[in-house]
This record gives sequence, structure tokens and C-alpha cells, in this order.
Amino acid sequence: MPWLTCYLFKGLSKSQLQRIANISMEKQFQKGQLLFHEGRKADQLFLLKEGKVELLTKIGEAIELPIDILRSKGSCFGTTILVAPYLYSLSSRCAEDSSLIVIKKTDLEQVISQDCELGFIMMSNMSQHLLERLKETREELKIHFRTFVKSVHA
Amino acid sequence: MPWLTCYLFKGLSKSQLQRIANISMEKQFQKGQLLFHEGRKADQLFLLKEGKVELLTKIGEAIELPIDILRSKGSCFGTTILVAPYLYSLSSRCAEDSSLIVIKKTDLEQVISQDCELGFIMMSNMSQHLLERLKETREELKIHFRTFVKSVHA
Repeated sequence: MPWLTCYLFKGLSKSQLQRIANISMEKQFQKGQLLFHEGRKADQLFLLKEGKVELLTKIGEAIELPIDILRSKGSCFGTTILVAPYLYSLSSRCAEDSSLIVIKKTDLEQVISQDCELGFIMMSNMSQHLLERLKETREELKIHFRTFVKSVHA
Repeated sequence: MPWLTCYLFKGLSKSQLQRIANISMEKQFQKGQLLFHEGRKADQLFLLKEGKVELLTKIGEAIELPIDILRSKGSCFGTTILVAPYLYSLSSRCAEDSSLIVIKKTDLEQVISQDCELGFIMMSNMSQHLLERLKETREELKIHFRTFVKSVHA
């Protein structure tokens, strides 16, 4: 189960990973297929097994801004099934025919309700990932700020 | 204990809040005092009881960029004691004489090790907060991107 290398599962025991595997379903998706839409209710977590998936956001109605392209086995997305208010924060689309592992929010919630330690580890991993993304995004803002300061002083 | 209104403690039971209160210490700090420095090892969580605290980041060596000013009772900062690699992600300084509640990382870890549900709730709250900050920061980036696109097409 190489797709269980997703950062969310780091630190789980073999039996905990097995419980995650038990609620996982493999599904096939075609190139161009939209997996979920930014702002919609998040009810499924996805893990990449084979293929390529784009994450993107819209700026107004016209511009699609690519945020990331996932290629590595075990890359996970739709992780906001774990975080209130449980809405997808980006859109996701297959950039080529892809084989994905799908985990339903309700199934994962049941596993967590039966094993608090598993839930704690996953939420700790989630926080770590979100903090890393936040730092990266702040760094991008700093670059814009530097450019702005330079243009003012030019 | 109005400072226990911090978002991290949302959803905890009365007895869980009492365990947090038991490891909390009130301390006085003076205007201008640096509470912690961006990038340093995070070993204390702070909650605002009275006063005003600035959060800031440095751009290069010369420019200090203010990120937030905390004025509300229960505002918490230094929350990266909960998130690996346990480094403060911003600097923090008292903007006026302040009364703060300090919780040591080691004490909080002990409470969490004795009550997994408490840990799970706190990490879920942490993830929710980080996701909100990430969305805000992405929105700021989008504004810069829009400005950039407009200037290119001008």
C-alpha cells in the first residue's frame, strides 16, 4: 500500500494503517475530469496511486491559477474533510488518466471515533502540513512586498 | 478564566479546561518587551489577559512587517508549541504593559498524553485556525496577482 505514505498517516502503527486501508477504495478517473470544486462540501479524501492531478483556484470568473501538480504516489488532496467547516479549499482535476484511492469522510470519522490516538496523530500531521503551506505562502507575499517597496523607492 | 476562550480550547469539557488552568501561570510583561523571536525553539504558549501584543515578521534585516495586533482577552500566540518542528513562526512583542498567561510546552504535552481526546480537540482547533490563516494569506496573494495582471495589460 505505497499510497499510505501520505503525510497524514506518518507515525501510525501497522494496525492503524490497516484500518485506513480497510476503508479505502481504488477508483479510475479520466484526464480532464473534475474531482471536486473549491468551496463545495468536502466528503472524500483522495490519494494518488497512478497519474497526475492538478490543484487550482479561480481568480474572479476568468482566470484559473494553478497551485500545484501532484505526481507522486501517496500525494493526498481533499484533506479538508478533516478540518471544519469541511469545504474543499481548492479545485482538483485529473491532468491525465489517473488511479486514485478514495476515502469517505464518514468512514474516516468512524475509524477516528474508535481510536483517538489515530485521530490525534492525523490532526497533528494535518497541522504540520498547513503550517508549512502557510509559511510558504507568507514567503511569496514577502517577495511581492519587497518588489512593491523597491518600486516605491525606485 | 476568560482567557480560556482561546480558539485552541473550543469544545473542551469543564474538567479538561480545569486541567489546562492547572498548568497556566500569570506573568507581567513590559511595553516593548520581546516575548519570542521568529525561528527560535517554541517552548511556551501565551494567552492575553490584559494589554496589547504585536506579532511581526522580518523582511530581510531592515524591515519589520506587522502581521497582527492582539487586544482581545484569550487571544493566543506561540501556538507552534503544538506543531512540529516546534519553532516560533513569527516574533512577538508587547505593545503596552501586559498581563499574560503562560503555558509550558512540556506541561501541555503531559496533559495531552493523559487525555487523548483533549489532544485531538486541540489539534483539530489548531488545524482549523491554520486553514483560515492560509485562506486569508492566499486571498492576499490573489490581490497581488490581480494587480500584476492589470499592470501587464495596462
